[in-house]
Amino acid sequence: MLKYKYTCCVYNHLLTSAMTNQFKETTVEEINQVMQRSHTAFEAFQKKNIEEKSVFLDTIANEIEALGDPLLQKASEETNLPIARLTGERGRTTAQLRMFATMLREGSWVEAIIDTAQPDRTPLPKPDVRKILIPLGPVVVFGASNFPFAYSTAGGDTASALAAGCSVVVKAHPAHAQTSEMVYQAIKKAITSCNMPDDVFQHVHGTSFESGKALVQAEHTAAVGFTGSTAGGKALFDYSAQRKNPIPVFSEMGSINPVIFLPQTLQNNAADLATQYANSITLGMGQFCTNPGLMLAVESSDLQAFLNHLGNRIKEVQPAKMLHTGIHTAYEKKSHAALEQEGVAIVEQATTEAKDIEARPVIAQVSGQTFLANPLLHEEVFGPYSLMVSCKDKQELITVLKSVSGQLTATVMGTVQDLENHSSLIDLLPSIAGRILFNGAPTGVEVCAAMVHGGPYPATTDSRFTAVGINAVKRWVRPVCYQNWPDNLLPLALQNSNPLQIWRLVDNEWKK
Amino acid sequence: MLKYKYTCCVYNHLLTSAMTNQFKETTVEEINQVMQRSHTAFEAFQKKNIEEKSVFLDTIANEIEALGDPLLQKASEETNLPIARLTGERGRTTAQLRMFATMLREGSWVEAIIDTAQPDRTPLPKPDVRKILIPLGPVVVFGASNFPFAYSTAGGDTASALAAGCSVVVKAHPAHAQTSEMVYQAIKKAITSCNMPDDVFQHVHGTSFESGKALVQAEHTAAVGFTGSTAGGKALFDYSAQRKNPIPVFSEMGSINPVIFLPQTLQNNAADLATQYANSITLGMGQFCTNPGLMLAVESSDLQAFLNHLGNRIKEVQPAKMLHTGIHTAYEKKSHAALEQEGVAIVEQATTEAKDIEARPVIAQVSGQTFLANPLLHEEVFGPYSLMVSCKDKQELITVLKSVSGQLTATVMGTVQDLENHSSLIDLLPSIAGRILFNGAPTGVEVCAAMVHGGPYPATTDSRFTAVGINAVKRWVRPVCYQNWPDNLLPLALQNSNPLQIWRLVDNEWKK
Repeated sequence: MLKYKYTCCVYNHLLTSAMTNQFKETTVEEINQVMQRSHTAFEAFQKKNIEEKSVFLDTIANEIEALGDPLLQKASEETNLPIARLTGERGRTTAQLRMFATMLREGSWVEAIIDTAQPDRTPLPKPDVRKILIPLGPVVVFGASNFPFAYSTAGGDTASALAAGCSVVVKAHPAHAQTSEMVYQAIKKAITSCNMPDDVFQHVHGTSFESGKALVQAEHTAAVGFTGSTAGGKALFDYSAQRKNPIPVFSEMGSINPVIFLPQTLQNNAADLATQYANSITLGMGQFCTNPGLMLAVESSDLQAFLNHLGNRIKEVQPAKMLHTGIHTAYEKKSHAALEQEGVAIVEQATTEAKDIEARPVIAQVSGQTFLANPLLHEEVFGPYSLMVSCKDKQELITVLKSVSGQLTATVMGTVQDLENHSSLIDLLPSIAGRILFNGAPTGVEVCAAMVHGGPYPATTDSRFTAVGINAVKRWVRPVCYQNWPDNLLPLALQNSNPLQIWRLVDNEWKK
Repeated sequence: MLKYKYTCCVYNHLLTSAMTNQFKETTVEEINQVMQRSHTAFEAFQKKNIEEKSVFLDTIANEIEALGDPLLQKASEETNLPIARLTGERGRTTAQLRMFATMLREGSWVEAIIDTAQPDRTPLPKPDVRKILIPLGPVVVFGASNFPFAYSTAGGDTASALAAGCSVVVKAHPAHAQTSEMVYQAIKKAITSCNMPDDVFQHVHGTSFESGKALVQAEHTAAVGFTGSTAGGKALFDYSAQRKNPIPVFSEMGSINPVIFLPQTLQNNAADLATQYANSITLGMGQFCTNPGLMLAVESSDLQAFLNHLGNRIKEVQPAKMLHTGIHTAYEKKSHAALEQEGVAIVEQATTEAKDIEARPVIAQVSGQTFLANPLLHEEVFGPYSLMVSCKDKQELITVLKSVSGQLTATVMGTVQDLENHSSLIDLLPSIAGRILFNGAPTGVEVCAAMVHGGPYPATTDSRFTAVGINAVKRWVRPVCYQNWPDNLLPLALQNSNPLQIWRLVDNEWKK
């Protein structure tokens, strides 16, 4: 294990020197060694069988649980997140690890396809061709500040990459580096007890541009996962493009998650909607990439009634500490900048003033025309902030929706009649976001097979993948096919007898 | 339709002004209009149902066939490829279009996943989440010079993109622009008779850097497919990375396709192997991205016997015209450069000298050590050229194999005993290439579901995809999920009653 010390902050350039940690910043040379070792471990890891890999993932989950309350306390101390929330997030993290273990044991995720030979075909015989997914190689993971467990050290990127058969190097998030160290120790225990290659998982600390760049550009790095800011995610993407051999970089870079409130539902349910959305906007002090930062509706007295209700709910919310000083400073700066724009009116803010690094929730309002003319209002304000765009009519609502960039989510609040009355608008939604919701709040991402946590740029750097759910594994694998290969030397998943009993497409028919 | 005139050459910068065509070079402004229209057509195309889209693909195939012999004659005139080869390639092209029509009608390619709600789950209810693949938007296709049908105007990229539901803009390859125009006319007929949006397929001509860059960087371009040189493919990739919103670029950039000859098979089958490989190396005058440009073996008298046989076969091959002057010039230049390297010996070349733009097939030999030390010898020589690397032992063979970059294919010629004696070497193969072959020749790419025509960089810009087979469609789609969406407003593939009768993963079980 390498020990580093912070010097300055980068990927989360919001961090300040107020954070004191004891970990030494890595050097570029050390990072290259780490990646070389990761490559060696990757080769050894590939030889482990499915059950060994599954037990390894399960054991990591067990070891994280075995850390008990001290892990939650340390995380709470570092992130200001309450114990209850962290308890839930730990449960999600271990559930993700076990979900991937289950996926491995079931086995069909490798997408085995078999086209058998037709030696007598004319004019040319048809060869036997068999396809399977294989791991890319060492994956570098840059975890998120807002999910110290579920999107960090042993989070979704790590779990899916290990499940794919990749080795993993995590750069600890500086904002919860000690929590990350504790989780790393749990993984190390699992490595030892499961007899895995020592370096199948490595943990480095670093806050400089150089360390991030070196991790992406190291010869042996095969892919990168990132969750964080647009600037950070795009920088890593660009570092990869500069490589001699560019590699996949999946950056999840946040979103303003538009929510459209349609007329009938505003008329029928203004008070309930307001309660639901006040909760969603201020959940975790708004520190979710699925936070509803943008609301859209057509002007009406019902809309004003909804905003009154929403304002009343927001007033009651108690400010709470944000994740760290940097994020708080950014929230202050970005929310103030937005609120100072011409034509932007504060609807309401929390009555209690914020102190220290607390965030004060706030709701603002702007006309469609003003929103369309001002790109600053399209930017994410990470925190308990949401902007209602009041459009003059249905057409302007469509124009506004078309003007927003790629999103993780887009939500419609409406009656079934509302949906039917706004079919052009509804038809637009899949083009904007990876997940579209009806009568719900975008905060809260269910970990399930059908989940898409992704979306068009700048929500992510590649909309063809998801960061949540079993398909997250697809980011770290590539297909390879075997032509006329001897049956006994094929991977088990491709052998004639189907020894793994998995679903396979055999001569264009799905069989098990 | 836009009409352009060549001025200079770019993506295939090998082209020379010797080619005279009558098509006008596009302007950047015109390209932006083309892409705007493509976007509008994309929106209309999305509303077409599965049967309408399938019939469209089938009709394109029919209309291409209806062009009859004049198409073959024009293509032969432009590319110097023989009619027999072009007849086969036309068959492959129409078969690909029909294969995607069949894929659409079967329907399971959309990877529908359904996780049903659990309203009573604690602590939080589980939402209903349903995932499907949707098209990315307008796709720009840069076709290949060496496949005027199968990888060009209505080739695999176009067929898979239309099948995905994308609109397509093809930049005609300057080396067969008139052939491309004829195929375009066939597609136009299909558009009309199938009542498709006029601009669902557009055809532009262009040879300047500016036109390629403008096509990649146009606001409405959603993805790019390219088949050609490393320089061209990488340039398009970089243009995308410079966009405000980077888009997927799948460039297939060729390969040297290493073939490993193992000792027993050299001892047993030297003469037959030589015939097989002389044919593969000179097939289509070596103008295939799967051409075996690199051969590897351990030094032995059997190897020399094989090379003698191979040389004798090569001597007999009649030189033939290459695709165009530019490719011929490049072949002359690159093969001479390789043959002039210190330590490289010509094994044999065709007895008949080449004239005009004919290629003269040649086989060369070099030691493992020299090959390892000279990066120039690792470069593709596009044409009927192959270099045998004679390694001093098994270990050097492994070192040489590890030194080659990402490949489309890697082949082993051996007995089953050979494979068992070289397991470390065999284990390496999947890490190098997208397709690995046993006792075959890499030329000839079977169009089937299990085919992987792709591989690690620089074979392609993204090893996670294939350019051939039904999975080629995956390059042009992204997942979107619907949360708690009303059943009747869901895409048919996701509705409860499974009206399309497709395979779906429902609550983690595959069902139909």
